Amino acid sequence: MAGDGSDQRALQYEQTLMYGRYTQELGVYAKEEAARLRESGQRRSRALDLLEYDKGRCAKCRRSGYPYVLEAPAQDFISVCTVRCQKFLISRVGEDWIFLILLGLVMALVSWVVDFCIAICLQAQKWMYGGLDSNVFLQYLAWVTYPVVLITFSAGFTQILAPQAVGSGIPEMKTILRGVVLKEYLTFKTFVAKVIGLTCALGSGMPLGKEGPFVHIASLCAALLSKFMSLFGGIYEKESGLVGIKDYSLLGTKNESRNIEMLAAACAVGVGCCFAAPIGGVLFSIEVTSTFFAVRNYWRGFFAATFSAFIFRVLAVWNRDEETITALFKTRFRLDFPFDLQELPAFAVIGIASGFGGALFVYLNRLIVQFIRKQKTINKFLMKKRLLYPALVTLLISTLTFPPGFGQFMAGKLTQGESLVTLLDNRTWAKQGIAEEFDYIGNAQAWKHPQVNVFVTLVLFIIMKFWMSALATTIPVPCGAFMPVFVIGAAFGRLVGECMAAWFPDGIHSDESIYPIVPGGYAVVGAAALSGAVTHTVSTAVIVFELTGQISHILPVMIAVILANAVAQSLQPSLYDSIIRIKKLPYLPELGWGHHEKYNIRVEDIMVRDVRYITLNCCYRDLHSVLMLGHLKTLALVESAESMILLGSIERAQLQSLLSQQLSRSRRMEYIRERAAAEKKCPSDVSNSDSEDGRQRASQEVRFQISTEESTFSPTRPASQKPLKPALKRPSVMERPTKLPTSPQDHSGIALKSLFCSSPDVEALEDDGDVEDDMTLREIAEWEERQLDEQVDFNNCKIDPAPFQLVERTSLHKTHTIFSLLGLDHAYVTSIGRLIGVVSLKELRKAIEGSVTVKGVKVRPPLASFRDSGTSSSETEATELHKLWDRHRNVSLPGEQPTSESDEKSQ
Amino acid sequence: MAGDGSDQRALQYEQTLMYGRYTQELGVYAKEEAARLRESGQRRSRALDLLEYDKGRCAKCRRSGYPYVLEAPAQDFISVCTVRCQKFLISRVGEDWIFLILLGLVMALVSWVVDFCIAICLQAQKWMYGGLDSNVFLQYLAWVTYPVVLITFSAGFTQILAPQAVGSGIPEMKTILRGVVLKEYLTFKTFVAKVIGLTCALGSGMPLGKEGPFVHIASLCAALLSKFMSLFGGIYEKESGLVGIKDYSLLGTKNESRNIEMLAAACAVGVGCCFAAPIGGVLFSIEVTSTFFAVRNYWRGFFAATFSAFIFRVLAVWNRDEETITALFKTRFRLDFPFDLQELPAFAVIGIASGFGGALFVYLNRLIVQFIRKQKTINKFLMKKRLLYPALVTLLISTLTFPPGFGQFMAGKLTQGESLVTLLDNRTWAKQGIAEEFDYIGNAQAWKHPQVNVFVTLVLFIIMKFWMSALATTIPVPCGAFMPVFVIGAAFGRLVGECMAAWFPDGIHSDESIYPIVPGGYAVVGAAALSGAVTHTVSTAVIVFELTGQISHILPVMIAVILANAVAQSLQPSLYDSIIRIKKLPYLPELGWGHHEKYNIRVEDIMVRDVRYITLNCCYRDLHSVLMLGHLKTLALVESAESMILLGSIERAQLQSLLSQQLSRSRRMEYIRERAAAEKKCPSDVSNSDSEDGRQRASQEVRFQISTEESTFSPTRPASQKPLKPALKRPSVMERPTKLPTSPQDHSGIALKSLFCSSPDVEALEDDGDVEDDMTLREIAEWEERQLDEQVDFNNCKIDPAPFQLVERTSLHKTHTIFSLLGLDHAYVTSIGRLIGVVSLKELRKAIEGSVTVKGVKVRPPLASFRDSGTSSSETEATELHKLWDRHRNVSLPGEQPTSESDEKSQ
Repeated sequence: MAGDGSDQRALQYEQTLMYGRYTQELGVYAKEEAARLRESGQRRSRALDLLEYDKGRCAKCRRSGYPYVLEAPAQDFISVCTVRCQKFLISRVGEDWIFLILLGLVMALVSWVVDFCIAICLQAQKWMYGGLDSNVFLQYLAWVTYPVVLITFSAGFTQILAPQAVGSGIPEMKTILRGVVLKEYLTFKTFVAKVIGLTCALGSGMPLGKEGPFVHIASLCAALLSKFMSLFGGIYEKESGLVGIKDYSLLGTKNESRNIEMLAAACAVGVGCCFAAPIGGVLFSIEVTSTFFAVRNYWRGFFAATFSAFIFRVLAVWNRDEETITALFKTRFRLDFPFDLQELPAFAVIGIASGFGGALFVYLNRLIVQFIRKQKTINKFLMKKRLLYPALVTLLISTLTFPPGFGQFMAGKLTQGESLVTLLDNRTWAKQGIAEEFDYIGNAQAWKHPQVNVFVTLVLFIIMKFWMSALATTIPVPCGAFMPVFVIGAAFGRLVGECMAAWFPDGIHSDESIYPIVPGGYAVVGAAALSGAVTHTVSTAVIVFELTGQISHILPVMIAVILANAVAQSLQPSLYDSIIRIKKLPYLPELGWGHHEKYNIRVEDIMVRDVRYITLNCCYRDLHSVLMLGHLKTLALVESAESMILLGSIERAQLQSLLSQQLSRSRRMEYIRERAAAEKKCPSDVSNSDSEDGRQRASQEVRFQISTEESTFSPTRPASQKPLKPALKRPSVMERPTKLPTSPQDHSGIALKSLFCSSPDVEALEDDGDVEDDMTLREIAEWEERQLDEQVDFNNCKIDPAPFQLVERTSLHKTHTIFSLLGLDHAYVTSIGRLIGVVSLKELRKAIEGSVTVKGVKVRPPLASFRDSGTSSSETEATELHKLWDRHRNVSLPGEQPTSESDEKSQ
Repeated sequence: MAGDGSDQRALQYEQTLMYGRYTQELGVYAKEEAARLRESGQRRSRALDLLEYDKGRCAKCRRSGYPYVLEAPAQDFISVCTVRCQKFLISRVGEDWIFLILLGLVMALVSWVVDFCIAICLQAQKWMYGGLDSNVFLQYLAWVTYPVVLITFSAGFTQILAPQAVGSGIPEMKTILRGVVLKEYLTFKTFVAKVIGLTCALGSGMPLGKEGPFVHIASLCAALLSKFMSLFGGIYEKESGLVGIKDYSLLGTKNESRNIEMLAAACAVGVGCCFAAPIGGVLFSIEVTSTFFAVRNYWRGFFAATFSAFIFRVLAVWNRDEETITALFKTRFRLDFPFDLQELPAFAVIGIASGFGGALFVYLNRLIVQFIRKQKTINKFLMKKRLLYPALVTLLISTLTFPPGFGQFMAGKLTQGESLVTLLDNRTWAKQGIAEEFDYIGNAQAWKHPQVNVFVTLVLFIIMKFWMSALATTIPVPCGAFMPVFVIGAAFGRLVGECMAAWFPDGIHSDESIYPIVPGGYAVVGAAALSGAVTHTVSTAVIVFELTGQISHILPVMIAVILANAVAQSLQPSLYDSIIRIKKLPYLPELGWGHHEKYNIRVEDIMVRDVRYITLNCCYRDLHSVLMLGHLKTLALVESAESMILLGSIERAQLQSLLSQQLSRSRRMEYIRERAAAEKKCPSDVSNSDSEDGRQRASQEVRFQISTEESTFSPTRPASQKPLKPALKRPSVMERPTKLPTSPQDHSGIALKSLFCSSPDVEALEDDGDVEDDMTLREIAEWEERQLDEQVDFNNCKIDPAPFQLVERTSLHKTHTIFSLLGLDHAYVTSIGRLIGVVSLKELRKAIEGSVTVKGVKVRPPLASFRDSGTSSSETEATELHKLWDRHRNVSLPGEQPTSESDEKSQ
């Protein structure tokens, strides 16, 4: 529900607007209203938050507990319901598939269109460059200006439309899939900005990739698609409102977990349709985004990614680019003898070197970002002219790749895709160390330089592209680093392969048949190893098989990828984790196995002891002040401030609506009372008399501010002076159902059932008089003041009866595991039922990072001194159990340790 | 700790034995003892239980809290510790790798040797059959007797050595990885039985597979290997004893989670080295065994499986079977045009048909098992002669495959591997419907019959093999069903492919170039689809790529596998789940998305209200009676029977040792007191006087039984009458450290610290007098009686301060998710800190299965009536929160619902 304050407010605004609509026909209006409510409930449930609950059950109440409500359209409503219930089972099976198919289809189209546009952009550059071959300076201008303009446009466009679209998107998706709401990352604006920005950025020919952004685009697409599908009904709508069989509590939120599943599937689709690699896509997305993976959702990703990859390749066939569906970068290595056993050490060397290279790349990337951030003067300048940095970087890189200039030594005129195709070629470039023997055809010519050896070209290519890629990925445009790294890896592999081919011109195999070395195979291994090292994944192995369409080098690839990972993981975080740290995204770092200090940290060391809570018998004013103070998503409900027994947790939005309801709906009762007893006109005295403490009066102005915000229209409402009976009745009718806690039969204690059912009577009673609203602004203020002093009625409020609880002695390790397993945001710490603290992701992150940074040095946990010295606060609150223990100990073993007793007391 | 009762007892037995060892030198003895303890601790931690904790910390106590303990060898000990601590960081990095490499190596060797033996067995059968070609009857006898003997031997051998080795093993591994202890499934005996049984079973030529058993064998291997490695020290030993930084509480148990990780990796290795398919192995093992998968453990599986597959294939190269490392069933389909777009419907048809076929296979398999179980007369007969059923089934199957008989119509003379090789051949068997055009060479001849069309042969092969495989997998020998199903699927695919080739002799492609249809590709698709349908996995797609060494058919394979899964999953459970149900293994079923009833079930409906608990002030007699009553692994510790406030949980073994300690160690004190004050000889009166209730006296005999069981040697000890001082001191020295709760600094309340530290003083005090044990049996009994009436001292007991708690209104869905995520065994249900019930896997399973079987019919949960009628027990116990609520409601809204109040009371 986070971030839904605006929705809530919009709803309330609409509600207040309703007062002007009394002339409309009841049935039509009710239907309209129902649709609107449905939609808003829908919108709310789309938000990626795990902590809403019981909404479905409220909807049940709407039908069961309040049959009187929609008297006129009740028949319609019931018939609609039965039809929907019939549809329900069908949709249960089908809707998922439809969604995944649509997602795959859309993403395949997007991927294909983006690729198509990029190809046109690159062709245009080549055409310009080729057309101006008479004048080198003009050529240079064209070569340089084109990417600068594109990148600058991309950066500017993204900056203006949606700055969230900048960068890869995988770190953000990782965070979102962790359960943290990053709402603005999944909007239509971001989608547009990302797609157009990415197309321009890649069209410029910079060493950037489309893989990371495509993960983000696919997720955006999934989020938008589910919104879109909700317009046509189906589960997306039914679940949020009508069926009432949901458990919205933590983790049980079907809609939420479905959302997460769908987003996970979308990530797979993103990789799948980018590389036409469904299996690799699924695995890569799992490795990159998830901590714990639910195997039952496996098929979603597989299905959607396969469909997407299929459509993506079919489009190529239909476009006559290909004869049939094949791999994107098809290789033609020999099948019968792909490699010799004795070549394996060379593959292992590629793996280990790639591991170091990958770590270096991540380090370099971070270094550049941090350098630019730290340099105040540069930074200030760049901040002012936001587009200058991209332009400068592009200028530098494109200058260096200018083919007649330095670019001739590093195959500068080849695009990324062309480079990769040539690198994966199954022919050997260098034989016996002399490059001339190979007839370079097509793009492969670019690697041949009359004066310079092919080895030098490759080495220069690797070195230049390495820092260029690390630099280019810091440009604030939508871009990924996977593909550049992949190409660099392929080049490195090729280099090793060419060296091997030069050393063993007739192959290594000792038997009669000669099998020359295939440097293309080395390129495949290198590409998988380096990209695996940078991203800390092993599934790049699968991606290369799918990209090349050959799996013959499986063992070398696997060996190299594993070695690269082993090296890189011990040196640096993955590129995505590095970005998460740079961007300070709310992600929970991994708890390494080696950090023993963490086993000594307990929840009591890291928890926040100053918990915001509300008591069962608080008044609305307390509610108000609590809401004004903090910005927590949920608040703890305790029995009383003395006992502190935790009863449950309530969402902030719930409390807000409770407060606003109190100030808007009760208005009617007050109104009636005014009419019935016109003589007893002394409400202002009452309101003044019972504001007993000064704090309340002090906050009066603040409260006013809130009340105008939350029931904006109420003071101005008296302007419409017509009889308002039907319209007045409805707000409560429409509003309340979504607020009611649970349907009666969900309570095991039947006590509450009758209470809920009795509400209608009260309602009916209130609606007796035909009343008119003619209060003045002052009267309203006074009345509101009185309302605030009433005790809160939590019956109309959704309370999560089982918020997640920890005990103060729960270890950090356990807490971490539970948080990451269940995707928790916060957990209450209780001691024998009493609320003593709260731990949120923030505290946990701090505790983990605190000990991670100093690992190996300190044995004592960072907060050990705090615990050992035993400050009074920790003693009084945290040692409940130990006190009990001691008490019993003293009874059971009397006089056994008299000295220890005194020791204890002296401390 | 489950099942460690025997270890515990052995330990205690050893302890008692120690009394006789007083003559040994102190230092030597201490070292020996330390080694033994280490090993036993090791053994204990090997057991797959998630619920042990804090053992490490106890070991810390041994060093920090009790420096006085090992006076003589203390120096050695400390130096050893420092060396070990140095080694620790290294081992932290290295040990995992070493373990995985060893596992991969051993499994590759096992796989290769098994394959080699199977090949020899099959060759022997062919040789016998070929040598007797003069006489058909003799030929038949040889053909039939050979497998019957082998299968009967295999069944008998397995039955005698380890009946747990029967069957696939994947269902058991699934259960074990869920966290349930199936101890006897991971023993050396099982390993031997499984390997030898499997070799014989597969050597017989029956349609059985080695994949499932290999998953089990790999897990066995991992379990044994970790035991073996513990002998040489390293983490396996350090963790269990010395380092003291572990959190042994639920989930935090590093050793346990490591075990689970290692077993998961082992499963991957099993598949990997069976098919030389590392990636497919990892994915398949994840899909088949896990519910939630921790991505951070991914690399383990990959590494081990890759290494294993590598060694497995390298062995083949060294054995001159292969020239270099290639795929197991290498195909040579053309790369440039693997299939036409228009062939995709045919692939989809294969997928859908395979889905139905897969479901039918699972159903047939279950039907056969159930039929045999139900038929009382058959069953009785078969039960008596356990080896008759395997022999009969083998006889039937081998008779039908007899090549000169019916076998000639179904390529009966081919072994499974040969069939697969021929089915995956890239040439077309049938052109234009006439089989003659293809020159059948080698094994492919078997498919050609002079009278019968190749289509008929294929159809017969599919039909016969289908029921034969379903039947053969019910034989009680170690065997899997994956490979037979794989072959059937390949045959089905081949059939479709041959049909397509017959219908479109020149291929479908409309352009100028002619690309004939490749039936081998269809066989690949069919194999993946059918095996995917039977096992409910999509990773079979990856397995076929790795098996065939070609990935060109990726899209058809993926499409077919997904369709097959979609069909099969909606019809039947997977083969492994089906076996889990048949075998009634303690596995938690999946909670389908479609079952809405479950959202209405709450924990309070399914929990057991009669919780076994112990109170903080209970006496040893209570402990004893609680231990005698139930067999729960852990017991709840509550503050008192009145308050029922849950303080933690204690393991059964802990309590047992506490009890035995009380009866053995305190003996010394008693002894001293006897010596010091010989006049006050009235212990029997005391013991009789304070056994105030009759129940205690009634259970006296029973207690005796226990006391003899748990401290067997104590009554007979007086036989050795030499001075026992040094020996007497040591038991407490050696025993206590593993029993002490936590190291002092782990307690945030320092209160307990002094208490712990004071124990040494007591100890020192006790050791003052030089005493001799000269009690009679009767005296001992009386003394024990007194001991039992003392209050339990929980200081020397490991208490889990944070057992998993649920609230009574937690939904079934949430409970299920938490149980499966955290791998819980049980959870306590609390209401405002008060223990009101316990939910274990059993209850959860019942609740889920109860509503699964009646799905679609009932909307109300099975126990809803119980809740609605509100029996007194549920009311009093479960409505605590509601009462509170009501109380406050009444205060806050006085007189609003007078009718509802009365309603409530009348109910």
